Amino acid sequence: MKGLALAKVYQLLEPGPVVLLTTARDGRANVMTMSWHMMVEFEPPLVACVVSNADYSFAALRATKECVIAIPAARLAQKVVDVGNCSGRDVAKFEKFGLTALKARRVAAPLVAECFANLECKVVDGRLVNRHNLFVLEVVQAWTDPTQRHPKTLHHRGYGKFVVDGAAIRLKSKMR
Amino acid sequence: MKGLALAKVYQLLEPGPVVLLTTARDGRANVMTMSWHMMVEFEPPLVACVVSNADYSFAALRATKECVIAIPAARLAQKVVDVGNCSGRDVAKFEKFGLTALKARRVAAPLVAECFANLECKVVDGRLVNRHNLFVLEVVQAWTDPTQRHPKTLHHRGYGKFVVDGAAIRLKSKMR
Repeated sequence: MKGLALAKVYQLLEPGPVVLLTTARDGRANVMTMSWHMMVEFEPPLVACVVSNADYSFAALRATKECVIAIPAARLAQKVVDVGNCSGRDVAKFEKFGLTALKARRVAAPLVAECFANLECKVVDGRLVNRHNLFVLEVVQAWTDPTQRHPKTLHHRGYGKFVVDGAAIRLKSKMR
Repeated sequence: MKGLALAKVYQLLEPGPVVLLTTARDGRANVMTMSWHMMVEFEPPLVACVVSNADYSFAALRATKECVIAIPAARLAQKVVDVGNCSGRDVAKFEKFGLTALKARRVAAPLVAECFANLECKVVDGRLVNRHNLFVLEVVQAWTDPTQRHPKTLHHRGYGKFVVDGAAIRLKSKMR
Protein backbone atom coordinates (compact mmCIF):
# COMPACT_ATOMS: atom_id res chain seq x y z
CA MET A 1 0.00 0.00 0.00
CA LYS A 2 1.23 3.44 -0.95
CA GLY A 3 0.31 6.63 0.86
CA LEU A 4 -2.18 8.91 -0.91
CA ALA A 5 -2.27 12.68 -0.45
CA LEU A 6 -5.26 13.55 1.71
CA ALA A 7 -6.29 16.26 -0.76
CA LYS A 8 -7.05 13.53 -3.31
CA VAL A 9 -9.29 11.40 -1.10
CA TYR A 10 -12.48 13.04 -2.37
CA GLN A 11 -11.80 11.70 -5.86
CA LEU A 12 -12.22 8.19 -4.48
CA LEU A 13 -15.44 8.66 -2.53
CA GLU A 14 -17.26 11.35 -4.49
CA PRO A 15 -18.23 8.92 -7.30
CA GLY A 16 -20.30 6.91 -4.80
CA PRO A 17 -18.63 3.49 -4.71
CA VAL A 18 -19.85 0.68 -2.50
CA VAL A 19 -17.27 0.42 0.29
CA LEU A 20 -16.32 -1.83 3.17
CA LEU A 21 -16.15 -0.39 6.67
CA THR A 22 -13.89 -2.05 9.21
CA THR A 23 -13.86 -1.61 12.96
CA ALA A 24 -11.97 -3.22 15.83
CA ARG A 25 -13.11 -3.55 19.40
CA ASP A 26 -11.61 -5.57 22.24
CA GLY A 27 -9.14 -7.04 19.77
CA ARG A 28 -11.83 -8.29 17.40
CA ALA A 29 -11.97 -6.93 13.86
CA ASN A 30 -15.18 -6.71 11.88
CA VAL A 31 -16.18 -5.57 8.41
CA MET A 32 -19.46 -4.46 6.87
CA THR A 33 -20.70 -3.26 3.49
CA MET A 34 -21.81 0.34 3.13
CA SER A 35 -23.21 2.63 0.43
CA TRP A 36 -24.46 5.54 2.51
CA HIS A 37 -21.50 7.89 2.62
CA MET A 38 -20.50 11.24 1.12
CA MET A 39 -17.71 13.77 1.17
CA VAL A 40 -18.18 16.73 3.52
CA GLU A 41 -14.90 18.64 3.11
CA PHE A 42 -11.91 18.43 0.77
CA GLU A 43 -9.03 18.94 3.17
CA PRO A 44 -8.67 17.71 5.72
CA PRO A 45 -11.02 15.20 4.10
CA LEU A 46 -14.25 14.83 6.06
CA VAL A 47 -16.67 12.05 5.21
CA ALA A 48 -20.19 11.47 6.51
CA CYS A 49 -21.63 7.98 6.69
CA VAL A 50 -24.70 6.25 8.05
CA VAL A 51 -24.24 3.01 9.97
CA SER A 52 -27.52 1.56 11.15
CA ASN A 53 -27.80 0.98 14.88
CA ALA A 54 -29.00 -2.51 13.90
CA ASP A 55 -25.53 -3.23 12.48
CA TYR A 56 -23.00 -4.91 14.73
CA SER A 57 -20.43 -2.32 13.63
CA PHE A 58 -22.47 0.55 15.07
CA ALA A 59 -21.50 0.01 18.70
CA ALA A 60 -17.84 -0.50 17.83
CA LEU A 61 -17.75 2.68 15.76
CA ARG A 62 -19.49 4.71 18.42
CA ALA A 63 -17.30 3.38 21.22
CA THR A 64 -13.90 3.43 19.53
CA LYS A 65 -14.54 6.44 17.25
CA GLU A 66 -12.31 4.80 14.65
CA CYS A 67 -12.80 2.89 11.40
CA VAL A 68 -11.33 2.19 8.01
CA ILE A 69 -13.18 2.77 4.75
CA ALA A 70 -11.84 0.25 2.23
CA ILE A 71 -12.82 0.53 -1.44
CA PRO A 72 -13.21 -2.73 -3.36
CA ALA A 73 -12.90 -3.10 -7.11
CA ALA A 74 -15.77 -4.73 -8.99
CA ARG A 75 -14.02 -8.11 -9.08
CA LEU A 76 -14.70 -8.36 -5.33
CA ALA A 77 -18.47 -8.01 -5.89
CA GLN A 78 -19.36 -11.43 -4.54
CA LYS A 79 -17.34 -10.91 -1.36
CA VAL A 80 -18.90 -7.47 -0.94
CA VAL A 81 -22.36 -9.04 -1.04
CA ASP A 82 -21.35 -11.91 1.24
CA VAL A 83 -19.95 -9.46 3.80
CA GLY A 84 -23.19 -7.48 3.66
CA ASN A 85 -25.42 -10.52 4.07
CA CYS A 86 -24.24 -11.58 7.51
CA SER A 87 -23.45 -9.99 10.84
CA GLY A 88 -20.26 -9.79 12.85
CA ARG A 89 -22.36 -10.97 15.78
CA ASP A 90 -22.37 -14.44 14.21
CA VAL A 91 -19.42 -14.58 11.83
CA ALA A 92 -15.69 -13.80 11.87
CA LYS A 93 -15.96 -12.22 8.45
CA PHE A 94 -12.30 -11.69 7.58
CA GLU A 95 -11.64 -15.40 8.05
CA LYS A 96 -14.87 -16.64 6.54
CA PHE A 97 -14.58 -14.61 3.34
CA GLY A 98 -10.82 -14.79 2.90
CA LEU A 99 -10.16 -11.10 3.43
CA THR A 100 -6.73 -10.07 4.70
CA ALA A 101 -6.56 -7.62 7.60
CA LEU A 102 -3.50 -5.36 7.54
CA LYS A 103 -2.41 -3.20 10.43
CA ALA A 104 -3.33 0.45 9.97
CA ARG A 105 -1.05 3.29 11.02
CA ARG A 106 -3.35 5.67 12.90
CA VAL A 107 -6.34 3.56 13.96
CA ALA A 108 -6.93 0.13 15.50
CA ALA A 109 -9.36 -0.93 12.75
CA PRO A 110 -7.61 -2.94 10.03
CA LEU A 111 -7.02 -2.18 6.37
CA VAL A 112 -8.37 -4.67 3.84
CA ALA A 113 -5.46 -5.85 1.69
CA GLU A 114 -7.65 -6.85 -1.25
CA CYS A 115 -9.11 -3.34 -1.62
CA PHE A 116 -7.47 -0.80 -3.92
CA ALA A 117 -7.82 2.04 -1.42
CA ASN A 118 -8.01 2.23 2.37
CA LEU A 119 -8.88 5.33 4.38
CA GLU A 120 -8.11 5.46 8.10
CA CYS A 121 -10.82 7.52 9.80
CA LYS A 122 -11.68 9.03 13.18
CA VAL A 123 -15.12 10.24 14.22
CA VAL A 124 -15.03 14.02 14.60
CA ASP A 125 -18.71 14.89 14.95
CA GLY A 126 -21.30 12.62 16.53
CA ARG A 127 -24.16 15.08 16.95
CA LEU A 128 -26.38 13.31 14.42
CA VAL A 129 -25.64 9.78 15.66
CA ASN A 130 -28.57 9.46 18.01
CA ARG A 131 -31.18 10.78 15.60
CA HIS A 132 -29.85 9.62 12.23
CA ASN A 133 -27.01 7.11 12.86
CA LEU A 134 -24.91 9.64 10.95
CA PHE A 135 -21.20 9.93 11.76
CA VAL A 136 -18.83 12.61 10.49
CA LEU A 137 -15.35 11.15 10.01
CA GLU A 138 -11.97 12.71 9.31
CA VAL A 139 -9.67 10.74 7.04
CA VAL A 140 -6.32 10.86 8.82
CA GLN A 141 -4.33 8.52 6.58
CA ALA A 142 -5.02 7.23 3.07
CA TRP A 143 -3.51 4.33 1.14
CA THR A 144 -3.80 2.99 -2.38
CA ASP A 145 -2.58 -0.25 -3.89
CA PRO A 146 -0.41 0.77 -6.85
CA THR A 147 -0.74 -2.69 -8.40
CA GLN A 148 -4.46 -2.14 -9.00
CA ARG A 149 -4.56 0.26 -11.94
CA HIS A 150 -7.81 1.97 -13.01
CA PRO A 151 -10.03 -0.14 -10.78
CA LYS A 152 -13.73 -0.14 -11.60
CA THR A 153 -16.03 0.32 -8.62
CA LEU A 154 -19.52 -0.92 -7.76
CA HIS A 155 -22.64 1.18 -7.22
CA HIS A 156 -25.58 -0.38 -5.42
CA ARG A 157 -29.13 -0.04 -6.76
CA GLY A 158 -30.86 -2.24 -4.22
CA TYR A 159 -31.59 -5.94 -3.81
CA GLY A 160 -28.38 -7.27 -5.32
CA LYS A 161 -28.41 -4.98 -8.35
CA PHE A 162 -25.16 -3.14 -8.98
CA VAL A 163 -23.81 -0.95 -11.74
CA VAL A 164 -20.13 -1.23 -12.54
CA ASP A 165 -18.11 1.80 -13.66
CA GLY A 166 -18.21 2.22 -17.41
CA ALA A 167 -16.50 4.68 -19.69
CA ALA A 168 -14.46 7.55 -18.26
CA ILE A 169 -15.07 10.90 -19.93
CA ARG A 170 -13.40 14.24 -19.54
CA LEU A 171 -15.04 17.62 -19.94
CA LYS A 172 -13.55 21.06 -19.56
CA SER A 173 -14.48 22.13 -16.06
CA LYS A 174 -13.43 24.59 -13.39
CA MET A 175 -15.00 22.43 -10.70
CA ARG A 176 -12.54 20.79 -8.36
CA MET B 1 -43.38 13.00 -15.00
CA LYS B 2 -44.76 10.01 -13.16
CA GLY B 3 -44.91 9.66 -9.38
CA LEU B 4 -42.38 7.30 -7.82
CA ALA B 5 -43.00 5.45 -4.55
CA LEU B 6 -40.96 7.09 -1.81
CA ALA B 7 -39.67 3.69 -0.70
CA LYS B 8 -37.78 3.41 -4.01
CA VAL B 9 -36.01 6.75 -3.84
CA TYR B 10 -32.87 5.27 -2.27
CA GLN B 11 -32.28 3.20 -5.40
CA LEU B 12 -31.75 6.43 -7.32
CA LEU B 13 -29.38 8.18 -4.96
CA GLU B 14 -27.48 5.32 -3.34
CA PRO B 15 -25.37 4.68 -6.48
CA GLY B 16 -23.85 8.15 -6.12
CA PRO B 17 -24.92 10.02 -9.26
CA VAL B 18 -24.01 13.62 -9.95
CA VAL B 19 -27.21 15.58 -9.41
CA LEU B 20 -28.61 19.04 -9.93
CA LEU B 21 -30.04 20.93 -6.97
CA THR B 22 -32.66 23.59 -7.58
CA THR B 23 -33.87 26.29 -5.23
CA ALA B 24 -36.25 29.24 -5.52
CA ARG B 25 -36.21 32.43 -3.52
CA ASP B 26 -38.14 35.65 -4.05
CA GLY B 27 -39.52 34.19 -7.26
CA ARG B 28 -36.09 33.45 -8.74
CA ALA B 29 -35.10 29.88 -9.50
CA ASN B 30 -31.51 28.65 -9.45
CA VAL B 31 -29.74 25.37 -10.12
CA MET B 32 -26.35 24.02 -9.09
CA THR B 33 -24.38 20.80 -9.62
CA MET B 34 -23.76 18.55 -6.61
CA SER B 35 -22.00 15.27 -5.85
CA TRP B 36 -21.88 15.39 -2.06
CA HIS B 37 -25.06 13.63 -1.02
CA MET B 38 -26.06 10.31 0.53
CA MET B 39 -29.09 8.41 1.74
CA VAL B 40 -29.79 8.58 5.48
CA GLU B 41 -33.07 6.64 5.81
CA PHE B 42 -35.16 4.46 3.50
CA GLU B 43 -38.67 5.62 4.33
CA PRO B 44 -39.55 8.31 4.62
CA PRO B 45 -36.48 8.88 2.47
CA LEU B 46 -33.98 11.13 4.18
CA VAL B 47 -31.00 12.47 2.25
CA ALA B 48 -27.99 14.38 3.52
CA CYS B 49 -26.15 16.81 1.29
CA VAL B 50 -23.39 19.38 1.56
CA VAL B 51 -23.90 22.75 -0.12
CA SER B 52 -20.94 25.06 0.33
CA ASN B 53 -21.69 28.38 1.95
CA ALA B 54 -19.73 29.85 -0.98
CA ASP B 55 -22.47 28.63 -3.33
CA TYR B 56 -25.27 31.03 -4.20
CA SER B 57 -27.77 28.23 -3.49
CA PHE B 58 -26.70 27.98 0.15
CA ALA B 59 -28.59 31.04 1.38
CA ALA B 60 -31.73 30.08 -0.56
CA LEU B 61 -31.68 26.54 0.81
CA ARG B 62 -31.13 27.71 4.36
CA ALA B 63 -33.82 30.38 4.16
CA THR B 64 -36.54 28.49 2.29
CA LYS B 65 -35.72 25.01 3.64
CA GLU B 66 -36.79 23.58 0.28
CA CYS B 67 -35.08 22.24 -2.82
CA VAL B 68 -35.37 19.73 -5.64
CA ILE B 69 -32.75 17.09 -6.38
CA ALA B 70 -32.88 16.38 -10.12
CA ILE B 71 -30.92 13.47 -11.58
CA PRO B 72 -29.49 13.95 -15.07
CA ALA B 73 -28.62 11.15 -17.46
CA ALA B 74 -25.12 11.07 -18.91
CA ARG B 75 -26.21 12.73 -22.15
CA LEU B 76 -26.64 15.95 -20.13
CA ALA B 77 -22.99 15.89 -19.05
CA GLN B 78 -22.02 19.11 -20.78
CA LYS B 79 -24.95 21.00 -19.25
CA VAL B 80 -24.12 19.53 -15.83
CA VAL B 81 -20.59 20.92 -16.10
CA ASP B 82 -21.78 24.26 -17.45
CA VAL B 83 -24.22 24.63 -14.55
CA GLY B 84 -21.43 23.83 -12.10
CA ASN B 85 -18.99 26.29 -13.63
CA CYS B 86 -20.95 29.46 -12.97
CA SER B 87 -22.94 31.04 -10.17
CA GLY B 88 -26.57 32.01 -9.86
CA ARG B 89 -25.27 35.36 -8.62
CA ASP B 90 -24.26 36.17 -12.20
CA VAL B 91 -26.31 33.94 -14.45
CA ALA B 92 -29.96 32.93 -14.90
CA LYS B 93 -28.94 29.33 -15.43
CA PHE B 94 -32.22 27.78 -16.55
CA GLU B 95 -32.42 30.25 -19.41
CA LYS B 96 -28.74 30.27 -20.27
CA PHE B 97 -28.38 26.50 -20.47
CA GLY B 98 -31.76 25.69 -21.94
CA LEU B 99 -33.11 23.82 -18.94
CA THR B 100 -36.87 23.69 -18.46
CA ALA B 101 -38.25 24.52 -15.01
CA LEU B 102 -41.46 22.66 -14.16
CA LYS B 103 -43.68 23.49 -11.22
CA ALA B 104 -43.22 21.10 -8.31
CA ARG B 105 -46.12 19.88 -6.18
CA ARG B 106 -44.86 20.33 -2.62
CA VAL B 107 -42.03 22.87 -2.83
CA ALA B 108 -41.41 26.21 -4.55
CA ALA B 109 -38.14 25.04 -6.13
CA PRO B 110 -38.69 23.81 -9.70
CA LEU B 111 -38.28 20.37 -11.23
CA VAL B 112 -35.89 20.06 -14.17
CA ALA B 113 -37.82 18.63 -17.11
CA GLU B 114 -34.73 17.22 -18.84
CA CYS B 115 -33.77 15.05 -15.82
CA PHE B 116 -35.03 11.48 -15.54
CA ALA B 117 -35.87 11.82 -11.84
CA ASN B 118 -36.84 14.74 -9.61
CA LEU B 119 -37.08 14.63 -5.83
CA GLU B 120 -38.92 17.37 -3.95
CA CYS B 121 -37.20 17.91 -0.61
CA LYS B 122 -37.61 19.81 2.65
CA VAL B 123 -34.85 20.44 5.18
CA VAL B 124 -35.63 18.49 8.35
CA ASP B 125 -32.38 18.81 10.31
CA GLY B 126 -30.06 21.80 10.12
CA ARG B 127 -27.86 21.09 13.14
CA LEU B 128 -24.77 20.49 11.03
CA VAL B 129 -25.28 23.44 8.68
CA ASN B 130 -23.18 25.95 10.57
CA ARG B 131 -20.20 23.65 11.08
CA HIS B 132 -20.29 21.48 7.96
CA ASN B 133 -22.77 23.02 5.47
CA LEU B 134 -24.57 19.69 5.84
CA PHE B 135 -28.35 19.61 5.41
CA VAL B 136 -30.61 16.64 6.16
CA LEU B 137 -33.53 16.60 3.72
CA GLU B 138 -36.73 14.62 3.57
CA VAL B 139 -37.94 13.63 0.12
CA VAL B 140 -41.65 14.48 0.19
CA GLN B 141 -42.51 13.78 -3.46
CA ALA B 142 -40.62 11.87 -6.15
CA TRP B 143 -41.04 11.84 -9.94
CA THR B 144 -39.53 9.91 -12.79
CA ASP B 145 -39.74 10.45 -16.52
CA PRO B 146 -41.08 7.18 -17.96
CA THR B 147 -39.77 8.06 -21.42
CA GLN B 148 -36.16 7.82 -20.20
CA ARG B 149 -35.57 4.09 -19.87
CA HIS B 150 -32.46 2.71 -18.14
CA PRO B 151 -30.69 6.06 -17.95
CA LYS B 152 -26.95 5.98 -17.28
CA THR B 153 -25.74 8.41 -14.66
CA LEU B 154 -22.52 10.35 -14.14
CA HIS B 155 -20.05 10.00 -11.25
CA HIS B 156 -17.56 12.80 -10.66
CA ARG B 157 -13.88 12.09 -10.06
CA GLY B 158 -12.67 15.66 -9.93
CA TYR B 159 -11.54 18.29 -12.43
CA GLY B 160 -13.93 17.40 -15.24
CA LYS B 161 -13.35 13.65 -15.05
CA PHE B 162 -16.51 11.56 -14.88
CA VAL B 163 -17.29 7.88 -15.01
CA VAL B 164 -20.48 6.84 -16.77
CA ASP B 165 -22.52 3.86 -15.56
CA GLY B 166 -21.38 0.66 -17.22
CA ALA B 167 -22.71 -2.86 -17.00
CA ALA B 168 -25.47 -3.74 -14.57
CA ILE B 169 -24.91 -6.94 -12.63
CA ARG B 170 -27.13 -8.88 -10.28
CA LEU B 171 -25.96 -10.95 -7.33
CA LYS B 172 -28.01 -12.92 -4.87
CA SER B 173 -28.32 -10.64 -1.87
CA LYS B 174 -30.47 -10.17 1.20
CA MET B 175 -29.47 -6.51 1.40
CA ARG B 176 -32.24 -4.07 0.65
